[in-house]
Amino acid sequence: MNRLSKGEIADWLRGLQSRICTALETADGAGKFSLEEWERSEGGGGITRILQQGNVIEKGGVNFSAVSGKLPEKISSALKLPPSDFFATGVSIVIHPHNPYVPIIHMNVRYFETNSLSFGEGRGEAWFGGGIDLTPHYINQHDAKFFHSALKNTCDKYDAAYYPEYKKWADDYFFIPHRSETRGVGGIFFDRLSEDANHTKENRFEFVKAVGETFAPVYTELMKRNSAKPFTEKEKQWQLIRRGRYVEFNLVYDKGTKFGLDTNGRIESILMSLPELASWQYNHIPDAGSAEEATLKMLRKGIEWA
Amino acid sequence: MNRLSKGEIADWLRGLQSRICTALETADGAGKFSLEEWERSEGGGGITRILQQGNVIEKGGVNFSAVSGKLPEKISSALKLPPSDFFATGVSIVIHPHNPYVPIIHMNVRYFETNSLSFGEGRGEAWFGGGIDLTPHYINQHDAKFFHSALKNTCDKYDAAYYPEYKKWADDYFFIPHRSETRGVGGIFFDRLSEDANHTKENRFEFVKAVGETFAPVYTELMKRNSAKPFTEKEKQWQLIRRGRYVEFNLVYDKGTKFGLDTNGRIESILMSLPELASWQYNHIPDAGSAEEATLKMLRKGIEWA
Repeated sequence: MNRLSKGEIADWLRGLQSRICTALETADGAGKFSLEEWERSEGGGGITRILQQGNVIEKGGVNFSAVSGKLPEKISSALKLPPSDFFATGVSIVIHPHNPYVPIIHMNVRYFETNSLSFGEGRGEAWFGGGIDLTPHYINQHDAKFFHSALKNTCDKYDAAYYPEYKKWADDYFFIPHRSETRGVGGIFFDRLSEDANHTKENRFEFVKAVGETFAPVYTELMKRNSAKPFTEKEKQWQLIRRGRYVEFNLVYDKGTKFGLDTNGRIESILMSLPELASWQYNHIPDAGSAEEATLKMLRKGIEWA
Repeated sequence: MNRLSKGEIADWLRGLQSRICTALETADGAGKFSLEEWERSEGGGGITRILQQGNVIEKGGVNFSAVSGKLPEKISSALKLPPSDFFATGVSIVIHPHNPYVPIIHMNVRYFETNSLSFGEGRGEAWFGGGIDLTPHYINQHDAKFFHSALKNTCDKYDAAYYPEYKKWADDYFFIPHRSETRGVGGIFFDRLSEDANHTKENRFEFVKAVGETFAPVYTELMKRNSAKPFTEKEKQWQLIRRGRYVEFNLVYDKGTKFGLDTNGRIESILMSLPELASWQYNHIPDAGSAEEATLKMLRKGIEWA
């Protein structure tokens, strides 16, 4: 039987990249995404699209890739998989806005299989993964609720167990142990969604598609709500410090970054997530009672935003 | 017999920290180092000294620590050591100057032992390690030669084999694989210098002391030579991009940073190496024939600067 193929999944993801770039350009009002197609010498390639110095977006990347080849030993052992070929396709997004009141956002949706076998045929592995998380420089509780409610709505259409489980997973994943703080207000994170008794491959894919389609309406709304807010040099400084934490997470802990470096991926596409400007100040501690301190206090796991 | 003890080594290193801070303050002409003493809950502590917004130095840290406790499993297995207690003491320095024509410099000198046993007694391990490396934003060949010649002079006083071996080790260590470039013009790097047929513990320590004492005269000379040079916005931009690479090295590869994170070290002291400001621009490629391109071409292993 002709099951959902990796080609169909990759095609859909490529289309998603294009739709999201169009939606972001419209919301930005000025910036345009560049487009580079690239190939990976070991197999496959991708399309990297970057918007720099727009109206609202300072630096944003929307990356599509579909890569294949021998799975590096470092990765197969980390994933507890036997030596095999792999195919991985996904869309990854990170947006860094100018205005400190517009949050940073990240999304990734991906499909992975080994031995080029189709889902559920037992001779290889195949799964979906992904997530969306929001990193406000200043946490706005209304925005956090809006964001989480949208994710919950999307999840609930597919499985009532998804949101609580994936929300907790995001809290645990988007966490910076050496700072004892979450990266932001979290979101959802999921991995290794395979076919099981309750979910077909098609059904898993429909969920991942719905997550992908949730991104643009939610983030463009957050852009609209916040991008005209006035801010001072002090708030800009705080934004740069928070971006520094974002860099720490991505370079020290992020599995996607590690996977990219370990598979000899295209470095400029992997590190497109890093901001145009970030700052580290020694032992920076916000003033008591400040908005910065209030945000720091909310950078913790287990807050029910939805 | 009363051999060179860890206490004597730590005392000497604490004194080195103080002498280097004084020398840097004098050369800077305005900035003063702050001083924080801190304790590590699992054992030991340190003194972190930071100079921010001086005349020449934008952000510089000179850290002393002497920590002890149970060696974390992650580290004992990486070092191929049995489970044991450890003691580690060292001085670590990173200086980020304002002027793009003044290079970034890093030095570390350290002593490590397991089971609190003295060097060479066979019931534990004990060794010295360290290094100095220079990261010019713009490589000046005279400065690189001056820097390497000073290191070679220091090395040659102790063992003619040191400089060639440790210079190559630095080329290999201070390398950013995902960028296929060295962090700068290298320097020297050495580790696990134990007592052997040709070197007593005292002799190894004398060498490490000489390395430590090489830092201040060499770097203050480089500050003096370059800190009054005029520069434009373009050169400042390039400096921020090179600092971004420095952040990449430190967060992704540096063993000292990993050791600090893995031993639950004081995070602000570990990450004092990160610059006040750094930049990532997508796919930045210097103009053909530019000074930036000339520097990039020299960021490779195996150049004999001395």
